[in-house]
Amino acid sequence: MATSHIVSAFDEELKFLTRRISEMGGLAEQMAGDSVRALISADTALAQKVISDDVILDAAEREIGEKAIVTIAKRQPMASDLREIMGAIRIAGDLERVGDLGKNTAKRVVAVRDTGVPRSLARGLEHLCELAMNQLTDVLDVYATRSVEKANAIRERDDEIDSVYTSLFRELLTYMMEDPRTITTCTHLLFCAKNIERIGDHATNIAETIFYIATGAQPEGERPKEDLSTSVGATGK
Amino acid sequence: MATSHIVSAFDEELKFLTRRISEMGGLAEQMAGDSVRALISADTALAQKVISDDVILDAAEREIGEKAIVTIAKRQPMASDLREIMGAIRIAGDLERVGDLGKNTAKRVVAVRDTGVPRSLARGLEHLCELAMNQLTDVLDVYATRSVEKANAIRERDDEIDSVYTSLFRELLTYMMEDPRTITTCTHLLFCAKNIERIGDHATNIAETIFYIATGAQPEGERPKEDLSTSVGATGK
Repeated sequence: MATSHIVSAFDEELKFLTRRISEMGGLAEQMAGDSVRALISADTALAQKVISDDVILDAAEREIGEKAIVTIAKRQPMASDLREIMGAIRIAGDLERVGDLGKNTAKRVVAVRDTGVPRSLARGLEHLCELAMNQLTDVLDVYATRSVEKANAIRERDDEIDSVYTSLFRELLTYMMEDPRTITTCTHLLFCAKNIERIGDHATNIAETIFYIATGAQPEGERPKEDLSTSVGATGK
Repeated sequence: MATSHIVSAFDEELKFLTRRISEMGGLAEQMAGDSVRALISADTALAQKVISDDVILDAAEREIGEKAIVTIAKRQPMASDLREIMGAIRIAGDLERVGDLGKNTAKRVVAVRDTGVPRSLARGLEHLCELAMNQLTDVLDVYATRSVEKANAIRERDDEIDSVYTSLFRELLTYMMEDPRTITTCTHLLFCAKNIERIGDHATNIAETIFYIATGAQPEGERPKEDLSTSVGATGK
């Protein structure tokens, strides 16, 4: 009787962590998507909302961390239950970073507002953002099901984001070379593109954490989280 | 007798975690410093060493995480002992990220090798790197002493890194505008400068974790981790 009571209280605590992570995920997604929308439409009010929402996400991460510690101390879980809790802490950390990246993009809205974002570059950013948002939405759905296969599938999809990011990186360099007056704006857009690419990396991290929760191991093989733009040289090769 | 045996085994495990973190810190520092040296001296062999060392740091983070989990499960520590272990996990995470940032800088060495790094920009990067390395060395020393006052002092020093980074950001923009042939090189240097600035942020995170380990609370006041370059507009203001 006492045991089932404890088990059930533990399950309640796990459910609480899972629910809070899902809420964090929803907010992080919205912040990341809104930051790119604010950038493209020069919407400083929306950017300001993203910036101020970041404190909610930070507080949620702290709350999950503290709740997780209390749960470990009170329930003394072993093996897979402990992995669930450690996994929740890690995922909350990744989602908090997604919010930070959205906030960093939002803070650049003021700097590019006057010149605006050229249409072709806006399309590239929107496409990159859409891919990253899909990764994030999907990985949060997979977290709910704890499917190892689906987590691995998401992890492998990060290649596409990296290749779209590298194209956009080249396009931004070309843009600056052709019209040096766009250098400041394009520099901010380069950092925004990098922010979005890194959101994809955090989705990959979350996929790896799901794998770890389910199996107790790290996924095999090289992490498909390579930023290929680092080797783009002055010759454009 | 049994209790003192358990306490002593727990202390041994804590010592192990602290020692491994100190080793991780040494390697992360070296990678970060070497990556900037490799960049400035176009030393691709040194860059390659930084890139390959990253797997050691990744493995160390995993080892600390796994050891920490085993310790929590076996010893069921409460309050401050639990914070020690959670803190070790967080700090290992920050050091792993420092290594990633060094690796990202190292991967850009090939891209800027042919053009080289202009002398005035190299000086700026070296200065920024020196400040970030000092923060990291000092915060790791403070971790050994668990001094809350010293942790807070380091946290406040991050402002200086941010202001040096913002100056370098402006200088790089000016450089590109004056000579558009340097756009590709300067873009990579912008990302390298940002990498170094973020190493300073991780030192700040570690300082906050030390505060948390010692007190069980988060430090008060706004985080002094602001990247002021985000608002640098096309007018250079």
